[in-house]
Amino acid sequence: MTQIAILGFGTVGGGVAELIDLNRKAIESRLGEGLYVKRILDLRDFPGSPYADRITHDFEDILSDPEISIICETMGGKEPAYTFSRKALERGISVCTSNKELVAAHGPELLEIARKNGCNYLFEASVGGGIPIIRPMNTSMAPEDITSIMGILNGTTNYIMTRMEHAGIGFEEALKEAQEKGYAERNPEADVEGHDACRKIAILSSLMCGRTVRYEDVPCEGISSVTVNDFRYARAMQMAIKLLGTSKRDSEGNFFVRTAPYLVPASNPLHSVEDVFNAVYVHGNTVDDLMFYGRGAGKFPTASAVVSDVIDCARNPGHTLACKWEPEIMKLSDPAEEVFRYFVRLDKAEEKKAAAAYAGAMMLEAPEGVTGECALLTGPMTEKAFSEASAGLQVLSFIRMLG
Amino acid sequence: MTQIAILGFGTVGGGVAELIDLNRKAIESRLGEGLYVKRILDLRDFPGSPYADRITHDFEDILSDPEISIICETMGGKEPAYTFSRKALERGISVCTSNKELVAAHGPELLEIARKNGCNYLFEASVGGGIPIIRPMNTSMAPEDITSIMGILNGTTNYIMTRMEHAGIGFEEALKEAQEKGYAERNPEADVEGHDACRKIAILSSLMCGRTVRYEDVPCEGISSVTVNDFRYARAMQMAIKLLGTSKRDSEGNFFVRTAPYLVPASNPLHSVEDVFNAVYVHGNTVDDLMFYGRGAGKFPTASAVVSDVIDCARNPGHTLACKWEPEIMKLSDPAEEVFRYFVRLDKAEEKKAAAAYAGAMMLEAPEGVTGECALLTGPMTEKAFSEASAGLQVLSFIRMLG
Repeated sequence: MTQIAILGFGTVGGGVAELIDLNRKAIESRLGEGLYVKRILDLRDFPGSPYADRITHDFEDILSDPEISIICETMGGKEPAYTFSRKALERGISVCTSNKELVAAHGPELLEIARKNGCNYLFEASVGGGIPIIRPMNTSMAPEDITSIMGILNGTTNYIMTRMEHAGIGFEEALKEAQEKGYAERNPEADVEGHDACRKIAILSSLMCGRTVRYEDVPCEGISSVTVNDFRYARAMQMAIKLLGTSKRDSEGNFFVRTAPYLVPASNPLHSVEDVFNAVYVHGNTVDDLMFYGRGAGKFPTASAVVSDVIDCARNPGHTLACKWEPEIMKLSDPAEEVFRYFVRLDKAEEKKAAAAYAGAMMLEAPEGVTGECALLTGPMTEKAFSEASAGLQVLSFIRMLG
Repeated sequence: MTQIAILGFGTVGGGVAELIDLNRKAIESRLGEGLYVKRILDLRDFPGSPYADRITHDFEDILSDPEISIICETMGGKEPAYTFSRKALERGISVCTSNKELVAAHGPELLEIARKNGCNYLFEASVGGGIPIIRPMNTSMAPEDITSIMGILNGTTNYIMTRMEHAGIGFEEALKEAQEKGYAERNPEADVEGHDACRKIAILSSLMCGRTVRYEDVPCEGISSVTVNDFRYARAMQMAIKLLGTSKRDSEGNFFVRTAPYLVPASNPLHSVEDVFNAVYVHGNTVDDLMFYGRGAGKFPTASAVVSDVIDCARNPGHTLACKWEPEIMKLSDPAEEVFRYFVRLDKAEEKKAAAAYAGAMMLEAPEGVTGECALLTGPMTEKAFSEASAGLQVLSFIRMLG
């Protein structure tokens, strides 16, 4: 019997405890022994809960318990999660986390402490919820020279975009609906401004290159400025609009990472990923394209990823699993040099000027319901050239097109 | 430096050697040391090849070399692959294989020998080519009660079906095209009659239940009887036709496994998996739906899966990785009791009789180009009830609809 503790008895932490009870038989059968949640750290009490007698308010109770060999950190946020994780790893207690904020900020440091102490810092649940992506990148893709990652990494925004597309409603209305359904927080900024997706693509990019991609270095745009008219044009072009985290390494050694809304052509499998589902598309030089698809959030899917990490730790006592992620900062290429085609909406009066301003511009017919504006798709150009061409034009909005 | 040997220097075996050279830097960086192909077993010589001096015709050269700790078995077929794998594992040499025929026939026995000798029998490349699916089932899905698997598991047939759908050509013509492109063998029986997909779903089903699903027990239908008219109706219903391996465990303890062509609705992500791509859709009780997508065959994608297993072995010397697959035979439920809706084409003269014969039948309008026949979609019914209802009717063809 492997004994574990949970830090933070919220949605995910509660899911971990429930999952371990619910799937006791499957876990015992595959692990060869049981998992037992011995202690749960939370500020609150949970009178009446079947876990009430295991709640503690003092992290020392867990740290000093020699029977506890694995901790699930499902608190979120940097502190006290960072201090607790660090202390546990220093004692050789493995930590399995869903905390992307902490992983993005302190991942390589905590991995190094785990290595030194013969235990593990695992974070499958920090990206893509229940989707296996961190472990496949560390294992299945270990022989690969990974050259690109594109991911729908945030379920809240994907739900909002799906509703805008199918119901023809605006951003504010779709956001309100998402909040009513519990898919979006009261304060939705971290999701809709792209910060959550940005942390996740920074983590995946770090695993891709083996060094640290700082999320602060990643250009980040959210979806709050995407309009109903953008979707009308996208539909006419048989494309979807998705908030993506992207990471691209080219043969000249450029390394571009970005979070932004993109036009996604129907031929790309990400096109049909809808609602709260997430998907990550990875290209390796020999395996070619892989896609991993599933629920990117939610109590049980996220808890499942945490418990899969717990089982990995329990199967490998005293053994640190491989994860190439060095603290050295990865210098990203100048985002102004990245090349895209751009979908641009402008004031109707700008039509002629715009056609001449953008190299290779293709004017688009206005779809039903769109008046007073014009739109075009540019040829491939750098961000810098695009900014220069846009100067002096009344650009209403623009969206990059996926390669 | 970990030294390995390759058995069988054909497409996949050659790919393994080339990949290890091509991605030397990525592999060394993630593994922390290099991989070196010391010996290659083949009946042929390869004069002029950079590997010519490492070729041997005698397996004993490999078996008796104490420096070789891992073998890649890429010969295919049962013998001598079985004897060689067995002998290697008995000496504590790990075996990584792409040989689905051998894994389906002797998987649990070879796994047991590996366990007893502290080494590994790994077979990621045996299902889905480059797609990570075996390892995720053993690790990421370890906490899950897996209730269903549906997979496009054969690239050859998926290519043929894609061509029939988009080019409107018949089976024979599409097969010929696939052969010309090198996607289908001269003798295409194992692919088009579903035997290859059947072995793969038997392997996945075994991992799903932890016991042995014998492929001989799995009802198996191929695609050679699917016609252009089937695709015309499918398109009118906005469905695709795909050869699937399916595995389903219901709450009453029934366990159904099958290989057959299915109608796949547009809402299912498998609908848009085209050409030689494969995809596996897995449902776990807490993680919900996951899908894994990528190239299901080909030299480098398959070699990449083999090398990922080699890296797993090299990272875990003396440690047998977890894989729950017992030799005990899993008794499958009577396939006649599985419930489906059926798409049925009949002679035009049967229209009235057919409408009455099938419970809940919905008559379908004939799409353009279809004459002299009628078609319907039945309500949900068991295979047995469907056979009984079909008796005495001139059924031209039928296809099951995916759930």
